[in-house]
Amino acid sequence: MTYIKDGAAIYKESFAIIRREADLSAFPPNLSRVVVRMIHACGQTDLPALVQASPDAARAGIDALAAGAPILCDAHMVANGVTRTRLPAQNEVLCTLRDPRTPDLAAQLQTTCSAAALELWRDHLAGSVVVIGNAPTALFHLLEMLAHGAPHPALIIGIPVGFVGAAESKQALADSTLNIPFLTVHGRRGGSAIAAAAVNALASEQE
Amino acid sequence: MTYIKDGAAIYKESFAIIRREADLSAFPPNLSRVVVRMIHACGQTDLPALVQASPDAARAGIDALAAGAPILCDAHMVANGVTRTRLPAQNEVLCTLRDPRTPDLAAQLQTTCSAAALELWRDHLAGSVVVIGNAPTALFHLLEMLAHGAPHPALIIGIPVGFVGAAESKQALADSTLNIPFLTVHGRRGGSAIAAAAVNALASEQE
Repeated sequence: MTYIKDGAAIYKESFAIIRREADLSAFPPNLSRVVVRMIHACGQTDLPALVQASPDAARAGIDALAAGAPILCDAHMVANGVTRTRLPAQNEVLCTLRDPRTPDLAAQLQTTCSAAALELWRDHLAGSVVVIGNAPTALFHLLEMLAHGAPHPALIIGIPVGFVGAAESKQALADSTLNIPFLTVHGRRGGSAIAAAAVNALASEQE
Repeated sequence: MTYIKDGAAIYKESFAIIRREADLSAFPPNLSRVVVRMIHACGQTDLPALVQASPDAARAGIDALAAGAPILCDAHMVANGVTRTRLPAQNEVLCTLRDPRTPDLAAQLQTTCSAAALELWRDHLAGSVVVIGNAPTALFHLLEMLAHGAPHPALIIGIPVGFVGAAESKQALADSTLNIPFLTVHGRRGGSAIAAAAVNALASEQE
């Protein structure tokens, strides 16, 4: 079988195809790079129409990571998708979903484990990069925590996927008056690969 | 904010929406359950049009996992997406991408690490469930290994994502005359979440 076996060449050609096919005109250059990687993760060049970000989102994420911000992930697949060698400051990548305290917190708060796990982020939230790539309830819970005075992250990447609450939680993020930089993909689409790809793009300019 | 916080209710409602919206008529019941979970992972009910599987794919996967087959994954995100509590026989979940031998094998074989990592699967391939959710080169390499006499897995879930080689490698899987049960999503779409969802559906009937 004949196919390209050079990883670097595959990346280069992939990104060239994406830039040729996708309409990235709505985004500033630093965000455009992020959206290219998000498209790369899902194989769909129509993604840009669903992407919304605050004007300062890419800058906020790049600067926070460079300054050593922790990366707080709602799911282990997200945490696993963050390429450690791209991180500029050996940033901590934290997922508290399997913390032994999480099930008790979920029972106590009468919510999902994905949402309850965020309670264990409180000491890490200030200046962090939050990445929600799986659970709509986690994104809803984050917005509730912030509305009740939790410390502000530097950037919220809110890209949960699915059919119940995903679109609604992402709309709530976009409508929020908290004035925290954010990046989202509206509607049902999303997921850990797209969310992790956004982090990987912000972490390093290397393509 | 008002939203459903009961994980079981969210799953139930999600799957009901998928069954209402998606055209699953092309699939037998045991495969239909798998496709529902794949749709759940990507948030897109138009996925069935891209799904192709051999008639015995779901049966082969269910039986292999019940019999204790190892699950061989091309990427750690795939391995991480396999819900261990759903596995019927504490099946081993193996990813050799970060094995210290992999970079040397890649250099020697002049291919990607994702492809070279599969060389370390040889002793585990017979009767296994192979899950390729990331790298087209891994799926191409698997087909080459099998063409050269490597032991046959019980099922190949071949769902790499992307713009270079993804569609081609999946077409090669579907066109293969190896007579190994397979499941794929044609075109550019795919990825670790969809691939892991297929495994999770085969592992347990619980929704």
